Formats: sequence, structure tokens, C-alpha cells
Amino acid sequence: MAPPKALLLSAVSKFFEYDTPRIVHIRSKKVGIINRFIQLVIIGYIIGYVIVYKKGYQEFDNVQSAVTTKVKGIIFSNDSDIGTRTWDVADYVIPPQEANAFFVMTNVHPTLLQTQTTCPESISVSGAQCQSDEYCQKLLGTILPKGNGPVTGSCVPSGYGNVSVCSIFGWCPVENNVTFDARAFLASANFTVFIKNNIEFPKFDVTRRNLPEPGSIQLPENVTSIDAYLNSCMFNGDNPRDKYCPIFRLETIVNGAGVTYENISQEGGVMQIIIDWTCDLDYSENSCLPEYSFRRLDKGDYSISKGFNFRYADHFAMMVNDTSVMYRNLYKATGIRFLVTVQGQAGQFRIVPLLLNIGSGMALLGIATVLCDFVVLYLLKARAFYKEKKYLDVKGQDAFEVLREDSESKTSNEVKRRNQRLGEVTDANGSDA
Amino acid sequence: MAPPKALLLSAVSKFFEYDTPRIVHIRSKKVGIINRFIQLVIIGYIIGYVIVYKKGYQEFDNVQSAVTTKVKGIIFSNDSDIGTRTWDVADYVIPPQEANAFFVMTNVHPTLLQTQTTCPESISVSGAQCQSDEYCQKLLGTILPKGNGPVTGSCVPSGYGNVSVCSIFGWCPVENNVTFDARAFLASANFTVFIKNNIEFPKFDVTRRNLPEPGSIQLPENVTSIDAYLNSCMFNGDNPRDKYCPIFRLETIVNGAGVTYENISQEGGVMQIIIDWTCDLDYSENSCLPEYSFRRLDKGDYSISKGFNFRYADHFAMMVNDTSVMYRNLYKATGIRFLVTVQGQAGQFRIVPLLLNIGSGMALLGIATVLCDFVVLYLLKARAFYKEKKYLDVKGQDAFEVLREDSESKTSNEVKRRNQRLGEVTDANGSDA
Amino acid sequence: MAPPKALLLSAVSKFFEYDTPRIVHIRSKKVGIINRFIQLVIIGYIIGYVIVYKKGYQEFDNVQSAVTTKVKGIIFSNDSDIGTRTWDVADYVIPPQEANAFFVMTNVHPTLLQTQTTCPESISVSGAQCQSDEYCQKLLGTILPKGNGPVTGSCVPSGYGNVSVCSIFGWCPVENNVTFDARAFLASANFTVFIKNNIEFPKFDVTRRNLPEPGSIQLPENVTSIDAYLNSCMFNGDNPRDKYCPIFRLETIVNGAGVTYENISQEGGVMQIIIDWTCDLDYSENSCLPEYSFRRLDKGDYSISKGFNFRYADHFAMMVNDTSVMYRNLYKATGIRFLVTVQGQAGQFRIVPLLLNIGSGMALLGIATVLCDFVVLYLLKARAFYKEKKYLDVKGQDAFEVLREDSESKTSNEVKRRNQRLGEVTDANGSDA
Repeated sequence: MAPPKALLLSAVSKFFEYDTPRIVHIRSKKVGIINRFIQLVIIGYIIGYVIVYKKGYQEFDNVQSAVTTKVKGIIFSNDSDIGTRTWDVADYVIPPQEANAFFVMTNVHPTLLQTQTTCPESISVSGAQCQSDEYCQKLLGTILPKGNGPVTGSCVPSGYGNVSVCSIFGWCPVENNVTFDARAFLASANFTVFIKNNIEFPKFDVTRRNLPEPGSIQLPENVTSIDAYLNSCMFNGDNPRDKYCPIFRLETIVNGAGVTYENISQEGGVMQIIIDWTCDLDYSENSCLPEYSFRRLDKGDYSISKGFNFRYADHFAMMVNDTSVMYRNLYKATGIRFLVTVQGQAGQFRIVPLLLNIGSGMALLGIATVLCDFVVLYLLKARAFYKEKKYLDVKGQDAFEVLREDSESKTSNEVKRRNQRLGEVTDANGSDA
Repeated sequence: MAPPKALLLSAVSKFFEYDTPRIVHIRSKKVGIINRFIQLVIIGYIIGYVIVYKKGYQEFDNVQSAVTTKVKGIIFSNDSDIGTRTWDVADYVIPPQEANAFFVMTNVHPTLLQTQTTCPESISVSGAQCQSDEYCQKLLGTILPKGNGPVTGSCVPSGYGNVSVCSIFGWCPVENNVTFDARAFLASANFTVFIKNNIEFPKFDVTRRNLPEPGSIQLPENVTSIDAYLNSCMFNGDNPRDKYCPIFRLETIVNGAGVTYENISQEGGVMQIIIDWTCDLDYSENSCLPEYSFRRLDKGDYSISKGFNFRYADHFAMMVNDTSVMYRNLYKATGIRFLVTVQGQAGQFRIVPLLLNIGSGMALLGIATVLCDFVVLYLLKARAFYKEKKYLDVKGQDAFEVLREDSESKTSNEVKRRNQRLGEVTDANGSDA
Repeated sequence: MAPPKALLLSAVSKFFEYDTPRIVHIRSKKVGIINRFIQLVIIGYIIGYVIVYKKGYQEFDNVQSAVTTKVKGIIFSNDSDIGTRTWDVADYVIPPQEANAFFVMTNVHPTLLQTQTTCPESISVSGAQCQSDEYCQKLLGTILPKGNGPVTGSCVPSGYGNVSVCSIFGWCPVENNVTFDARAFLASANFTVFIKNNIEFPKFDVTRRNLPEPGSIQLPENVTSIDAYLNSCMFNGDNPRDKYCPIFRLETIVNGAGVTYENISQEGGVMQIIIDWTCDLDYSENSCLPEYSFRRLDKGDYSISKGFNFRYADHFAMMVNDTSVMYRNLYKATGIRFLVTVQGQAGQFRIVPLLLNIGSGMALLGIATVLCDFVVLYLLKARAFYKEKKYLDVKGQDAFEVLREDSESKTSNEVKRRNQRLGEVTDANGSDA
């Protein structure tokens, strides 16, 4: 609008302008109620769900965690297979330490004092059985599928009845997987594990651990210090205090996943211990406490892949007639692998996320208008009337003509006259009357 | 509008109101086409990309996973360096079990029966070579860089030609890293690994495993049960059935990453096995199947950090003349470390995300108006006409004056008259004419 | 508007239409400034924060990583507890290799040559001390809490003063946890670790490693090649070049977390090595370099869970009078566990995220209108005037009546006349005057 000679001024004037949409303000019970209802739903969603329920006013940070575990427990076995002996942690926890995990052996099938020599192949290896050396000679040097070593070519007694097998060269004697029952020798309900979990929320510079802080829990009487409590306590999910005790009976963990200890300890399996740190740091840090839950991760029901077991060996040498010979003890270890998963996040009030959620929430209010307009302009009896109020019908030079001559002719004359200099506008008896 | 005495009523009346923007309804081919086109693009984006392609109608959950691996394979070595012997899993998989990983030794450089005593330092240690004891006396007690122990002070034959070196106290004999060739004794194309992967999508309470369920795959004829199939099958990415077989030849994995087995097994390396579970739970669970892919994670080309190897030792004692002496067998193990990464997420239809995506998508439609307005108000020939229809020009008391007197004077008189009681409005021949 | 006989045509005509809201264009310094200011804040937020600071114009990908570590260092111990011997990596790194982690033993309490037999229980086990066999007979077969095996029933001298304890059957001799001091025999400031980290950003097909590429860093003079540099360099966070050297003195890592090496190596602990790859791939790949930081993850201050230690054993057999007997060496290992965490993401320009951020940003501009309208319609002196310009007051058939007769009567007559055929509209002296 500014004359060309004052472009700058007009620019400045632009700065002092404000555009706001023109509104049709409809007073109508029907429309109003629809409108307010939809608005209510949307605002309810924004405030109730986004802001309050989803804590839209908070900034979040994920947990950084370190887990160390210490299993405790002694068990005495008196068994033909694994002998009369006492087992402690250094025997049945393999490897001695892992990150976020530990394995407890519940059953073991040892093959002791193996050395590299020749011996009969296992009779359970298909193709190992023989009647004569010729058969084995044909296999000379080959390793049978699932076999234990290259065939030497001689047919020897297997030691089981009068069955003969080809002899092989390898770790001898070979593992006897004929007579091995799946009892859980080493499964003791008394084993416990101390799970030490230090976490941090770097963004909020908050560090916590799963050992109750003094004051954060109420000690039992006759227990004076947290240390004393930790020396005696045992995790119990149902107890408001002991559900924060970081010492777990293995059986509690297994049962917590709805599995019986006998069941899983025979075939072995994989358990998950979930430590959840979901903290609202708008409250005291002391209310930021872990929650434990347990799941069984393997649900094996195929014979081929049942449970969880693996083979390992202790290698060593022995002096035999003043010469050292390499030996190994082979163990087929069955047991429970415990994985410790630490998850969760902390939130704390920040102004930015709040504004953003409100802002983007308000954008949703546009939906109310869309829906109401639909009702008002297409459903209501007086829709023609409202439409006319809402719309200013403007016909451009290149409007698409739909046999409108008649309808226009009505008013065309003075309209034309009025609008020559402007272009063209149809007088739809609109708000410009 | 309500008289002060009826505030409540007016409040109630507010409730029965509805505001909807007034619209200029322009009929013009040019503008219409531009408008519809932009709308089409945006709606196409929302429906085509956000809703359909990105599955905006679904809620998602990430996979929870447990992986256990079992390597199988026997190899016979007949070599000066590692001797004539048979190697099985308990020998070449170190450690026997890991979480989401396993290491297969492809080459080993053993130093057997080391014990704590004095012996010549390795000639490859810089500064170890000597002509006389004086030199070593100067070093007495110091540990040379990359040396094997404190120098004892005496200069002894190294055993290589007539080179002399200082003797040290430590694990003797020291590792001979002079003559060690990088052949891959233990690399066998026949080694296989059974990868057992149990996953869960907790949010949808769906658990799956990478063992094909009965019916989910079509068995080969003459194979009656899944178990039988799993006993015989071998992974093959190109075969519609065998690409779900969880038993892999190590060579297949390595080749799958575009690496030759010979190449990687000599220097060692790190491979990644990616198991991808991307599931659309709107379909049958049985269509939720894993996809395997393989990558090489280390691409070492510096001599200093070539491949992957590490040293480990078996410690034991031996009776030597009725006294026990501590020994160890030291191994420099070269091999391939396989990391198993399980990723992926599952989606299922939920109404909330659908509504949200539509809602926020509709907000984008505002862009269409912005762009079209720009065209209509600044580019079209009839822009002045449209502008006048769209805008009601209102001049506040404190409007910024840009030498408008002239332009106003035109119409000021009757305008002034008409508008005295209101404040001021310029008649821009606007929609209020 | 099209006659029923031409529905198709009207549909087509619909296509050539465009709706744009009618705007009140207010020229007012006050309102304008408020309006522009709010717009400025929002646009500033979008451009400054979302686009520029948060790189809203980029697509991001998370890092895929493989870490291998190699510890180097020799230490000589001369101590009553662990004897006179030289320790190397194969002795004090347990297990020899882990994924993304390594443990360095700084102190060890060995119990050598244990075998399965009977021996006095440890006097530190509560309930083990006895005066006579009767007491032990009562405990026959039971394993005392924290005991080392089932009680055999006889009361024997403990070997400490004249204290007697029940004898047990198990690994004998039992660990002596009476005299064990927490010195860090094996903590050497000279130990180093080579951390080899290969990463990949799959989406951008970019692979990097934490070994400086030729040309990416400026070599010291007299060092000719990267290999030579890597052979000699040592990480130093303060040095522009050495902060990319992947070889770390353990002490540097520990100090980097504000901990003294002596302190942590006595009780043991858990350290985190964070390798951060935050890369802007709009720049050269060579500028995509790692950043190292160090944190202590355990902050133990309870006596019960102080530091980090675990027990492991070497199992072996020995020939004793021509029969093999199983032995083990038990070690209580204290040390530092180092976890290597690789994090970070890479971003690269993409058009889609840019458009999306701009689009959703513009939606926020609606807030400016909301706020300004509030000012204009409720706070300004001339609010009535502006309200009248902005709103077209329309009264539906079912409007909620609030004693408005009077206010309406004013103008009702000609209005009624004018609007009979339309329904009803109150002339609020509005823009329809």
C-alpha cells in the first residue's frame, strides 16, 4: 500500500501489522455442544494422557548400568557319575565371572583323564560299529559324523556287550553318552546370588545402587545397620522391605518366572533377571528404587535343542614315568544361565518439553474445527445459512463454468457494474451483501 | 455480550458457542489445481508414507532375546608346531560359552610346560642381546620393554645361532615368536554352529524362536518331523526352506560377509551374525521369521593390529621328584570371534497411533494453504482482487503512518462518518464495501 | 450450486476450488510488535534449535561396533602370599578375552593344591569352633553357613593358637581368610591396553576405526608411519594428537575417572571406558573421530560389597604314588573390570527430515495467533472494536437465549427483514454492515 518511493517505510509498517483469521461466531446449542465435546476429548487427551500420564513435562534419560554378581553355596555330591565330593562356586560357576550374566552348573557328566591315544569310538556314533577290520580300513583316516577322531582302521570291542567298533585316535577314553541320566546332582535350593547393580542417569547426574541406602528402607528390629541387614536378608518380592534385598535364592528367581527349579535344573535353561529403574526425579532420589522381575528366555520343546548345556575341559599335564603327558578332564555341563538386564529411565521436570507438548497438542485442536464444520455445513438443517455465513464465494477470471449463467443472470447486472474494476465476484447474497 | 448481572448465564451461553474461521471460497482453475496438487502431495505423504509405508497404524515393540550357541566339529592336526593330535570343541572354543558370542580358534602357537625359572630372554626383544654379563648386570632386575621377566644379570646363549641374550626370571621357556607361521591348522570348512535364539515381544506377549515351528516351513519329502529336519539341515540363504535352518557352516557365515575362510582364519577376525526379527503381527505369528545376515566387523590393514588373537594359559602343577611344581601351557590363539546381534521390532494395529498420525498429518495440510496463499496473493494477475477479498484492512488507533493521508483522503469522508463510533477502519474497497 | 442434472460437473468444479481463511489485517504498533516478537521467538526456536542446533536437516544412524582389547605388561612379585614369580597377561587377565570388557587382576589370594579330603573348617566360619567331638557329631553331615563342606564329626586343632574346629570334607586345605591383606601386589602403573574399535554406520555405509588414518592426524617428526606411531604412542587426553592414540595406560584410565590407581586396585572396582563417535557426515569422514571418556561405575562404600573380586580355580590331576589325584588351585582374585561402551550417532543431510521439521515447526506458529488474539480481544482498549472486526456473530435457530431481547431489539427490524429468507443473523454492527 505504501507508495514506491517509501519501500523502507512500508517494510517497517509491515512489521507493525498483525493478521488474525476472521471468525464466524455461531451461537447454537447443537453445534456448541458438539464443538465443546470434541475439544474436551482432545484437551483431555493432551492434559490427561500426554502431559500427566506420559509425563510430557519431563525430560528423560536412560540408565547406565554396571552389574557384578557373586554366587554362594556349597553342595556335597555322592554319586557314581560325579563321585563323592564337595562342590563350591569355583567348581560350578563357569566362567568364574561374566558381564551381566552367570552360569550355574546343575548337572555334569565328566570324562576324566582323557589323553591323546587310540580307543574305541563311541557306539552311539552311527557307522562306528564293525564286524571286522576291513570295514574300519575303508574308513581309515576319516572322521565319522559326530565321531571323536579319525579312524585308525582296527575293529575293537566297544566294552558294551559284545559290540565291536572301529578304534579312533583322539581324546581317549571317549565320552560315554550311553548311560547318562538327567538328574540334577548339583541343583541346590540353597544357592544364593548377590547381584550388585550400580546405575547412573548421566543427564541428571544421579547415581544409585540396588543396595538400600540408610533410611530408604525400614530395618527390622534387632537389626541395627544396613550392613547387618544385607548380611542376613533374602529377596522376597512380596515383602515391602525384602523386595529390595539384592540377595536372591536361585529357586526364588526360577519360581518367579513360573518354572520349577527341578524342571529347569535337569535340562538346563536360560533365565532373565530384569532390574527396572523407572524413576521420577521430581520426587526424592531415595524413592528411586529398583524393581526385579524374572522371565524364562528359552522355551525349548524340541528334543534336539532341549535346555542348555555345553562341554568344557581342564587341560593339564601329568608326569607318567618321568615324562609329561597332556591330559584333560572333559565335562558336559548342564545348568542355568542367568542374564541380568538393567532397563528403565528417569524423568525430571523441564520447561521445554512441556511447552512443546502443549504446542503440538494445540495443533490437534484443529481437528475439532474440521469435525464441527462438517456437522455444521453438511448435516444441520440450517447448513445453507451457516455455509453462506462462513464462505465468501469468489469467482476468478478462469473459474470452471458449470451452467451458472442462469443463477448468475439474476444479479449479474449491478454486480458486474460494481465489480468491473476488480475482477469478478458473484453476489451469493453472502456476507458481503 | 451478556449483561453483568447474568455472568453465570453468559458463561453457560459461552458453552453453547462455536467459532469457525470465515473462508474465501475461490473458484479458479489455476488456483484450484495448485491447491489440489499440494494437498494431494501432502495427503499422499501422510497415507502413503506415514500410514502405509511406516505402518503408522501400528504400535511397536522391540525384541527381547536370548542366544545360545553350540559349535560342532573335530579336526586332526599333524604338525611340528602343534603336534599330532585331534582337536574338538572343548579344545578350540574359548571360552566354552559366552553370551551372544563364540570364538573359534583357527591357529594356535603353543609354548608347553612353562615354569617359573630362569632362561634366555627372547631374541626378538630389543635390548636383550648381549656380548657379556656386564651388559646384563646393568639391567639387573629390570624388565625390558616387551620382555618376559626381570633380567637376572647373566648373558647366556639364545639358542639361535651364536647370539647371546640376557637371561630372565619368569615363565620359561619363553614364547618363541621367531619361527611362527600363520597357517590356519585348525580351520576346517566342516565346523558348524547351532545358533539357538529365543525372542519375545513383551508388549504383545509373543514369543518365537529361530527353530521352524511345525507347519511354518514345508519339510523335504522323506523327512518326517522338524526334529529330523533340524538333525540334517544346513543353513542356505538362497533356499526358501534352508534359510531358516539354524545350523550354519562357519564357512557359509564368513563367505556371507564376502570374506574367504582361508583369509580370515589365518590372521583371525571378528564376524557379526545379525538375526533380524521384523514382524507384522497383524498377520499370523507363523509369518514372524528371522532373517540372517553376516558382516565382518574388523577391517584391519595395519600390521600392528592385524586380525584377532590373544594369549591364554592352562595352569597346573606336576609332581617332580615328589614335590609339586607349578606349570602352565601358554597358547597364542588366533581365530574368528563371532558376535550374534539380535535386532528387529514387531508392530500390531492400535487405534491411538493411527489417530495421532492422522491428526498430526492434517496439521501439515496447513502448508498447502500457506503455499497457495502465496501464489494467489503475490503471483496471480488478479492478486489485488483476491487480496481484497481475503483481507479486511483494519487500522488501529496506533497504526504506523506511512504517508497514507493521500491514499486515504480519497475515501476518508464517508468512511470516517460511517466509522466514528467504532474506532477507525480504512475502506480498502474491501469485503466491507 | 450445480443443478442436480450435472453432479459430475459439480464434482469437477469442486476440483477447481480453493478455500483460504479470511483475515483481519490489523495495523497497530502495539499488536504488531507483540505478534512479531512471538513469531520471532518461535521461528528462532525452529531455526536456531530444531534445525541448526539439533541438526533437524539430518537423518541419523546409530553406531554398530566391535571392540577387541589386548593388555600388555609384566610384573614381578616377591611376596609371602603369592610367592616369588613373574606374572604376565596370561596370568592376570581373566578370562583371557571378553566382549567389550576385560578384567585385570591387581591382587590375588591363592590357596594352592587343594584336594578333596578332610581338614579343619575355617575358624572364621561361625559355629565351626568346638571343644569336643560331641559338638561336631551333632553337626555331622551338615554344611555350616558360609562353610566349606559337610562336617565329618570330629573336632580338630585349627592351627591358629589352640582353637579347635570341626573338620569338614571338601577342598582342603580351606581358604585362609584370616591373614589376607589388601595390598595390590600386581597393580603396575606400566600395564597398557590396546583398544581396537571398528565401527560402522550402516545407513550411510561408513566404516571407521579408532586407529588414526594416514593424514587424519599430524605425526610427530622422526616418526614416519602410522604404524611406527602406534608402536610408540600413549593415550593422552590433553594432547591434540595423542588423544586419538588407542593405547592406554591403565592408570590414565583410572585417573581419568578421578580415582587413584592405588585406591581402586586394592579393593577392586568397575571402570567404564566410553568411546563416543558423534559424527557429522556432511563434513569429511576423516573428521569422524572417537572421543574417550572414563567413569567409575561402582561406588561401593558398604563393607559387605566393597570393590570387586571373585574366586576361580585351576583344576588338574597329579600322579601321587602312581595314582592320579584331582587337585585345584583356588584364587580369590581382586581387580579392576573395564567395560568398553561404544556410543554415538552420525548425521547426514536429507531433504525429508528438513521438510518435516519445518512443517511441524510452522504448526507451532499457530501459538502466536492464539496469544496475540488474547491480547487483542481481551487486553487492548479497543478490544471491542477488534472483536467486532474479527467476529461475525451468527445466531442459530437453537441459540441459547440469555435475556438478549433488549440488546437485539435495537436493530432487529431491518435485520429481520434482510435475513428472513436466510435463517437469522444478528447485526452486531459487524463486518457485514
